[in-house]
Amino acid sequence: MAKKQRDISVSEFFAKNRHLLGFDNPSKALLTTVKEGVDNALDACEEAGIVPEIAVEIDQLDETRFRVAIEDNGPGIVRAQVPKIFGRLLYGSKFHRLRQSRGQQGIGISAAGMYGLLTTGRPVRITTRTSKRKDARHFELVIDTQKNEPRVKADRIVRWEKAHGTRVEIELEGAYRGGQHSVEAYVRQISLANPHAELHFRGPTAKSKSTDDSGAAAPVVTFPRVTKELPAETAEIKPHPYGVELGVLMQMFRDTRARNVKTCLQGDFARVSARIASDVCERAGIPPTRRPSEITRDQAERLHEAIRATKIMSPPTDCIAPIGDDLLVRALRAEVDADFYTAITRRPAVYRGNPFLVEVGLAYGGDMTSEDSVSLYRYANRVPLQYQQGACAITRAVTATDWKAYQLQQPRGALPVGPMLLIVHIASVWVPFTSESKEAIAHYPEIIK
Amino acid sequence: MAKKQRDISVSEFFAKNRHLLGFDNPSKALLTTVKEGVDNALDACEEAGIVPEIAVEIDQLDETRFRVAIEDNGPGIVRAQVPKIFGRLLYGSKFHRLRQSRGQQGIGISAAGMYGLLTTGRPVRITTRTSKRKDARHFELVIDTQKNEPRVKADRIVRWEKAHGTRVEIELEGAYRGGQHSVEAYVRQISLANPHAELHFRGPTAKSKSTDDSGAAAPVVTFPRVTKELPAETAEIKPHPYGVELGVLMQMFRDTRARNVKTCLQGDFARVSARIASDVCERAGIPPTRRPSEITRDQAERLHEAIRATKIMSPPTDCIAPIGDDLLVRALRAEVDADFYTAITRRPAVYRGNPFLVEVGLAYGGDMTSEDSVSLYRYANRVPLQYQQGACAITRAVTATDWKAYQLQQPRGALPVGPMLLIVHIASVWVPFTSESKEAIAHYPEIIK
Repeated sequence: MAKKQRDISVSEFFAKNRHLLGFDNPSKALLTTVKEGVDNALDACEEAGIVPEIAVEIDQLDETRFRVAIEDNGPGIVRAQVPKIFGRLLYGSKFHRLRQSRGQQGIGISAAGMYGLLTTGRPVRITTRTSKRKDARHFELVIDTQKNEPRVKADRIVRWEKAHGTRVEIELEGAYRGGQHSVEAYVRQISLANPHAELHFRGPTAKSKSTDDSGAAAPVVTFPRVTKELPAETAEIKPHPYGVELGVLMQMFRDTRARNVKTCLQGDFARVSARIASDVCERAGIPPTRRPSEITRDQAERLHEAIRATKIMSPPTDCIAPIGDDLLVRALRAEVDADFYTAITRRPAVYRGNPFLVEVGLAYGGDMTSEDSVSLYRYANRVPLQYQQGACAITRAVTATDWKAYQLQQPRGALPVGPMLLIVHIASVWVPFTSESKEAIAHYPEIIK
Repeated sequence: MAKKQRDISVSEFFAKNRHLLGFDNPSKALLTTVKEGVDNALDACEEAGIVPEIAVEIDQLDETRFRVAIEDNGPGIVRAQVPKIFGRLLYGSKFHRLRQSRGQQGIGISAAGMYGLLTTGRPVRITTRTSKRKDARHFELVIDTQKNEPRVKADRIVRWEKAHGTRVEIELEGAYRGGQHSVEAYVRQISLANPHAELHFRGPTAKSKSTDDSGAAAPVVTFPRVTKELPAETAEIKPHPYGVELGVLMQMFRDTRARNVKTCLQGDFARVSARIASDVCERAGIPPTRRPSEITRDQAERLHEAIRATKIMSPPTDCIAPIGDDLLVRALRAEVDADFYTAITRRPAVYRGNPFLVEVGLAYGGDMTSEDSVSLYRYANRVPLQYQQGACAITRAVTATDWKAYQLQQPRGALPVGPMLLIVHIASVWVPFTSESKEAIAHYPEIIK
């Protein structure tokens, strides 16, 4: 039995468990591919301080085969990084930091490419140009699933009219559906929560086996931006001591560059002043000058208990950028014709040491029907969550609210019934999704509250 | 921005996303740890042809800290494998094969050890002995989360009364709860679906800070075995051609040891005879003698289409071992006092090329209350699924059944109401769980049907 034991690569794991990433059926696979591309495009633009303009194009190549292209005016990607970003799972810049962004894990776009490869055998095609470069580069690459490594099939200089930006093309088995889970509904919802972004969407038209685009194209739908102002720039933060577990604390002592325990506590954590660091050491009975690498498990446990017993300020909240009540109301007005609009952005709070905030917009009456459950649009870091409404902490918070007090009917444990649209947005340096496919938020009591 | 791009180790990923593995809260963490240990113990015993006897012991060390021990009479583990099995995520023997087993991914027990380390700083302790060895070995090891590698803290020969077997001890932050999600309920349910296993369970008693076990222990509850007969031994099968995607087919052509396409099709797939292999090649217009490594993408696509157009027998079903209707009824009789018992084991079917079968046991009337929803016990490969009932394909199948035709009340889209207990078991060479924490089965239409 011992001889059969083997390593499993992370890409083999996710290829077999693709439903964990949102690729469980053809229409969802198509939507997930678009989402991952747009998330990355928006993140890249904002991080580089560029007002985003993003085009989503979908071509249907035959009955079940589609080509998805996402093109942005972002900063572009330097040559050496392209293969890893698109051809390797668990690679990226967003995992090892605490900063609000849409992407978190370094899985999404490479997983979409892997799904495309598995279902069509076609490589991912990337065209990218940074503003420093005279030329754009074009790549074709596939992921080696057994090794979780990229294999580059083409890497050449091309002419491209864009001064800077990235275009990704993925061919995949998919299905194009309308309705609540459609790509167009997604693009509309993305536009609602990202009023600074201009989005162009072109859906598929003719089914044709040929791969050239000479056939009649569907019209491009443009969602214009409402503001040219980027969301407030958010800071990266250090972990808050209250959210750090004993084992993590021990690891931080092993890895720190600080010379002693006191400067480690002060430098590697949020909201720990020299004085608080001294207090913690004293309470734990550890000399502040002790080298971090010499701290034993038992000493770390004493420090961990001392941290909990010490009053430390909540984490800073300039790391979170809300949409804001003003823009939420404008988004609602653009979406429905109602009698009454309101929105509120709550003050930031903390779960497991991570700052987050919740904001809610509400439209009531007007054209909406009073016989169905209210509509609920859920967002996390400005990304719409279209699946798994029943499993989401946002839904729980809405259904646990007593809406009868506001004269709405409400079946027990369900959404209220009435002519109402609710937008709920949670923004955080780390959104605790219930799965890698980012469809629902885990039920942390602090978040539901 | 390029300089911030980094690799993310799979253990860092799961440490941060622990809710994906069933460690989202203290009581679930305790239960998940027990489950992973018992799953492994049962799998190991059955694979070695040993009638399992398994002890689960839980000691409460202080308010929030527990020590879980799982001890089996299995084959033991050879020395070289111990660190990787317990100190590395995505390592194991069950992922790269198609064979019915409880474990699938090579994540569970190492993740439990990692959770213990993160929350208490304590290593996993393993005592194991194979029947070939005179002595048992004792290990203490931790996972290096950044590298996803084991670090061995102790490895020594010890005296142990067992001729062969393994004992795993994990210390963790947890909470001990009663009720439907309790460890005891889990052990009872495991015993129901594994009538060949003898299970001993000892829950926690006194809360004491001391780590020695001299205090009064809780009584041991024994769930005796009903039969000494092991489940029918199940075969490992090859993938069925209908379930293989184009990209996977291309990879198989690259990796095969077969000399030509025909022998590759014949040797690497289930149910492909020499004649069928020839038919497929002919239909695709590919010479059967072509070397697999020389097959281009377009040729692979033609072969893929030819496979779909060729009639190929369903996969063999000796790879699946049901509990059986007789033992299901016996299990139900042991569980509830009812007026009527019945059970049925369906013939195997196929989803995405994977054989599976469904069996159902039903008890009606007697002591059970007629005012509540019926009780539903869900199992996958003999493992009880205790969480996420609402998200499970089994639940969907039960709620989609028209129970009114059987004179039971049934609110729309919900479980029927009445004095009834249902056991539903799905057995498969690959169970498509909705998450790594193995709580619910994905909604494949073939399975729901």
